[in-house]
Amino acid sequence: MSKPDYDPGPRIAHAGSINLGTPDLDRSLWFFRDLLGMEVVEQVGGVAYLRGYQELTHHSLVLTQQDQARVNSYGFRVKRRQDVELFQKQLENQGLETLELAAGHEAGRGEAVRFLVPGSEHPFELYYDIDKPLADESIRSKVLSNSSRRRGLGVRRLDHINLQTSAGTVNQAESWLREALGFQRREFARLPQAPDIILASWLSVTPQVHDLAIGMAAEDQTGQFHHVAFNVENFHDILTAADQIRDLDIAYGAGPGKHGIGQAMYLYVHDPGSGHRIELYSGGYLIFDPAWEALEWKLPELEYGQTWYGDVLDVGPGGTFLSTSPSAGLTP
Amino acid sequence: MSKPDYDPGPRIAHAGSINLGTPDLDRSLWFFRDLLGMEVVEQVGGVAYLRGYQELTHHSLVLTQQDQARVNSYGFRVKRRQDVELFQKQLENQGLETLELAAGHEAGRGEAVRFLVPGSEHPFELYYDIDKPLADESIRSKVLSNSSRRRGLGVRRLDHINLQTSAGTVNQAESWLREALGFQRREFARLPQAPDIILASWLSVTPQVHDLAIGMAAEDQTGQFHHVAFNVENFHDILTAADQIRDLDIAYGAGPGKHGIGQAMYLYVHDPGSGHRIELYSGGYLIFDPAWEALEWKLPELEYGQTWYGDVLDVGPGGTFLSTSPSAGLTP
Amino acid sequence: MSKPDYDPGPRIAHAGSINLGTPDLDRSLWFFRDLLGMEVVEQVGGVAYLRGYQELTHHSLVLTQQDQARVNSYGFRVKRRQDVELFQKQLENQGLETLELAAGHEAGRGEAVRFLVPGSEHPFELYYDIDKPLADESIRSKVLSNSSRRRGLGVRRLDHINLQTSAGTVNQAESWLREALGFQRREFARLPQAPDIILASWLSVTPQVHDLAIGMAAEDQTGQFHHVAFNVENFHDILTAADQIRDLDIAYGAGPGKHGIGQAMYLYVHDPGSGHRIELYSGGYLIFDPAWEALEWKLPELEYGQTWYGDVLDVGPGGTFLSTSPSAGLTP
Amino acid sequence: MSKPDYDPGPRIAHAGSINLGTPDLDRSLWFFRDLLGMEVVEQVGGVAYLRGYQELTHHSLVLTQQDQARVNSYGFRVKRRQDVELFQKQLENQGLETLELAAGHEAGRGEAVRFLVPGSEHPFELYYDIDKPLADESIRSKVLSNSSRRRGLGVRRLDHINLQTSAGTVNQAESWLREALGFQRREFARLPQAPDIILASWLSVTPQVHDLAIGMAAEDQTGQFHHVAFNVENFHDILTAADQIRDLDIAYGAGPGKHGIGQAMYLYVHDPGSGHRIELYSGGYLIFDPAWEALEWKLPELEYGQTWYGDVLDVGPGGTFLSTSPSAGLTP
Repeated sequence: MSKPDYDPGPRIAHAGSINLGTPDLDRSLWFFRDLLGMEVVEQVGGVAYLRGYQELTHHSLVLTQQDQARVNSYGFRVKRRQDVELFQKQLENQGLETLELAAGHEAGRGEAVRFLVPGSEHPFELYYDIDKPLADESIRSKVLSNSSRRRGLGVRRLDHINLQTSAGTVNQAESWLREALGFQRREFARLPQAPDIILASWLSVTPQVHDLAIGMAAEDQTGQFHHVAFNVENFHDILTAADQIRDLDIAYGAGPGKHGIGQAMYLYVHDPGSGHRIELYSGGYLIFDPAWEALEWKLPELEYGQTWYGDVLDVGPGGTFLSTSPSAGLTP
Repeated sequence: MSKPDYDPGPRIAHAGSINLGTPDLDRSLWFFRDLLGMEVVEQVGGVAYLRGYQELTHHSLVLTQQDQARVNSYGFRVKRRQDVELFQKQLENQGLETLELAAGHEAGRGEAVRFLVPGSEHPFELYYDIDKPLADESIRSKVLSNSSRRRGLGVRRLDHINLQTSAGTVNQAESWLREALGFQRREFARLPQAPDIILASWLSVTPQVHDLAIGMAAEDQTGQFHHVAFNVENFHDILTAADQIRDLDIAYGAGPGKHGIGQAMYLYVHDPGSGHRIELYSGGYLIFDPAWEALEWKLPELEYGQTWYGDVLDVGPGGTFLSTSPSAGLTP
Repeated sequence: MSKPDYDPGPRIAHAGSINLGTPDLDRSLWFFRDLLGMEVVEQVGGVAYLRGYQELTHHSLVLTQQDQARVNSYGFRVKRRQDVELFQKQLENQGLETLELAAGHEAGRGEAVRFLVPGSEHPFELYYDIDKPLADESIRSKVLSNSSRRRGLGVRRLDHINLQTSAGTVNQAESWLREALGFQRREFARLPQAPDIILASWLSVTPQVHDLAIGMAAEDQTGQFHHVAFNVENFHDILTAADQIRDLDIAYGAGPGKHGIGQAMYLYVHDPGSGHRIELYSGGYLIFDPAWEALEWKLPELEYGQTWYGDVLDVGPGGTFLSTSPSAGLTP
Repeated sequence: MSKPDYDPGPRIAHAGSINLGTPDLDRSLWFFRDLLGMEVVEQVGGVAYLRGYQELTHHSLVLTQQDQARVNSYGFRVKRRQDVELFQKQLENQGLETLELAAGHEAGRGEAVRFLVPGSEHPFELYYDIDKPLADESIRSKVLSNSSRRRGLGVRRLDHINLQTSAGTVNQAESWLREALGFQRREFARLPQAPDIILASWLSVTPQVHDLAIGMAAEDQTGQFHHVAFNVENFHDILTAADQIRDLDIAYGAGPGKHGIGQAMYLYVHDPGSGHRIELYSGGYLIFDPAWEALEWKLPELEYGQTWYGDVLDVGPGGTFLSTSPSAGLTP
């Protein structure tokens, strides 16, 4: 029996944070803080740092006041402090350009390395150190694992990030995320009319079905952002959110409904300050099987995968999602 | 910056299965199959193998017809095939007696190693290989990640195992599980009147708050089984289960209620065939933080930890649970 | 202050039962009894009598084996025994043809009077006496207000009946139901392109928003049946039903979703034995205001009325529902 | 066949409002408005008028700043304008002292008659006219049947009122409420150790199991208030409320749990401003049967009736509730 050791290399721990540019910070703060119930941990000028009530770390969402409604960065936390440097070396060995970001570049966060995903050009930032500030006493929870009391629509944590890129670059990016960053393919679909192209792939480094998804953009653009998902406790919280959001002047995307892929319940809405698509997400199954084989969804079942029940998603040619936001380049 | 590699040693992947002895297999099958909705994948004489609708592997529950209502084994799956042998070597190097179980000792399962946890004497079995049989067509699901359709009260998978042992052995066992098997302490409490004794510790090798919990038994006994928890999709499924179970002649333990510890919803009932305590469990939070520090619950908050809201648990001296079942010895 | 007395005339108490013709009684019984969880109280040859777990009376659903998938009758219970005869007199005074049905015409039911609604020609039956048999001990509930234990998808009672008839007859029928039978108009909509025609009207004699709804048929047909709704306890029961039904080979109509009209959650499916549309229905608001004024839904809000959130209803021209079943004539 | 006409006398339509005295109006407003999400329709000096989001009428809750935490009145709406005067005549014919309250005595309300229930001495007020003001545009709903958008913990309407009085007066009061005001007994229990005394009786003039309940007080006091219940849409809303309230410094009574009596889910808390017990209430079954016979709960089933599942109620001798508030006398 051969006994190869575990790969000693650096690893991604989880999807940590996203930095959204918004032309209307006040409106975005109303949405994420007052409606969704997230805590504003810190605000420095036009930059606000938020977290859900079950997140003990400094932030999972950064709202940056700026003209462009683009995504400034996708942040992933690594497993050990030294993994930041180890990843940077690996990236450079592959000839990738990297940028070192000093501690505090995002408030509460330690040093990070920034780079663009080969092919899709999405700006990723890898970091390890992040503060764990207590919430203000006025909102602190009696539950030790909660940073604050459940409020608003009950967003408890960032769940996953969903990216898109052109048909010509999606395969390269998806493969690279698996090979270079260690994401595992959990479920996926090929473009029915061109099966050599990945329509969408759900990837994770945790037992979640996806911490990160990447799919084919409807238009020939790289670096597209489809949505970021925030986790709520139960399916019923999605219904309550739909009930309240439907009654407000907020662009309503789709939902509530349940995906066959991942088996979670969804509600897609758009941050009224920035227009970025936000998913409220609950449930789903967990993958503990170390020998998991990626599940492939093909037509006609693919329809069940996208919408098991509920409001049908607004999908375009070949099942691609419509309406996305651009991302920043290498320079923050 | 030092760069120690990741520990190359063997690892536990997740809590895989439990083998419950029952004096009344038919009644236990009625409970787990007809009421809870689990699938009987295979039955060999007086031994039945069951799984939840979201488990693709052969079984997570084994019901063995026998006079004694004891637990025959606690099964944990390892991350790689060779980890079975690597663990066995490590155990023997520690002077522990181990037993090799041939493939098929439990139907559908590969070779396993069996041993008793030092101190608590709980019989653990470690294995890697396990079949992934399709369910009978009559109950197969359209959802690729489900082995069968959701039925009955909707048990989808084994969630965690909860053990107890005497005050004199609980500390040794809890430390050993962490040091030898790599379980991480997520939340814990000390015995208020004797703080050097662990009242209960919630341990995991996954982002779950616990795959395994061990606590102090009310009586001076080792190898006690408190309960096995099966996961249902939403809090509301716990309410529905309570509604239906309350109306049947089944020993009702406690619930529904929500734990502060783990933030999951619970319902404790007893298998009418064997009397073993079964928990129906939903929700809870996930731990992705690689630098997580165990949360300690002390009085008076400890009460919130045990029951955040709902039916109060029937706890004995120092918060220990009453009523447990014994476990088998080293020989199956 | 004038003090006119309350109208001393006969009154409808509630929607009592529906008699559905089915070409495949066994398949219909599987659907209503085994899947939806209704109790078969009695079966006489090809006629089965069912009720929900919260109905103490003999039946709310009659399934009759016959070639035609039509509706044989719509049953309404009156407030007093003598109201059956008083209504019959009133109908005859209006020149309507009536039919006296002897006690036992439907098992467990007393004498009834049958007639066709002027204009729409729907066959109504009015009755007062109905037995209250205990369920078989094997399924009896500990809850005094339940006739049996909650089982299956948890149908607890008949909720309402939804009828359609041609554009040329809908106004006459809707007015007659209010004036002759005392139904109150709670919410309604006119046909946008021809506002003098009632698109749909939600009527009740109880605080429910509707015990009976009548709307314009897409085709020029009278006596159409759109659906009968059965009540489940919570919105979440609708999600569970959708999850299970979606995974079966049953024609799926629409849902889950929430109506703005009535504020209830819906799931529309088709009985696989007869093809009749069945709604699973939960929630909604109650009207206690004795001075209630009917709410009129106009475009564009009408869309919110039909689908507040969730799966959009499959509506045809002017918001009429598609796919209906015919009803029987005066002779049962 | 005899054909007696329906009783032409006056009738109660539903439980309309309650007037709670509170020593700390600001704290009570924080509780009912900011936490429970009720709308403050009007405030006149130390008197605030509130309603739930599904109530179109002016108010169902009046909070009056005063030293005494007593209940100032229990308001019931009658079916017709003239019923106010007709009831007053009937009461006087019985030798009861009545008080005429001018329109506007409670803002938005028409003329009312006030009296004390014989035996229990609870101050009732009967009225018909009440304004239906639109909510401020900033909170108005798109749903025609909602006066405002769902907010906070989602209280949608007053549900029922629960009263207590001494063992020596409870039977007289309960009979009088049925005979003089037309309430129907839906479910009830006798005092196990003295079966000639009514322990509790659930009464209604609507299909609800109770609009009003009256039971035996633990102490020998008349005119006691046990709680007022406000209705939320689903069981899950009770769980969410428990989750949030448990994390605040609010006196927590009992719950969440489900009553066997009425089959509704409950959560009992105390208004931090006044200490009055408030129930959040959801679900329950409706009674449409015109021949309903009151269900009697006896030991041992009575325990199921009080707590079907969940947190057990804090009941005193013979199942009486502990902790009540006093009511005002005849003079407001």
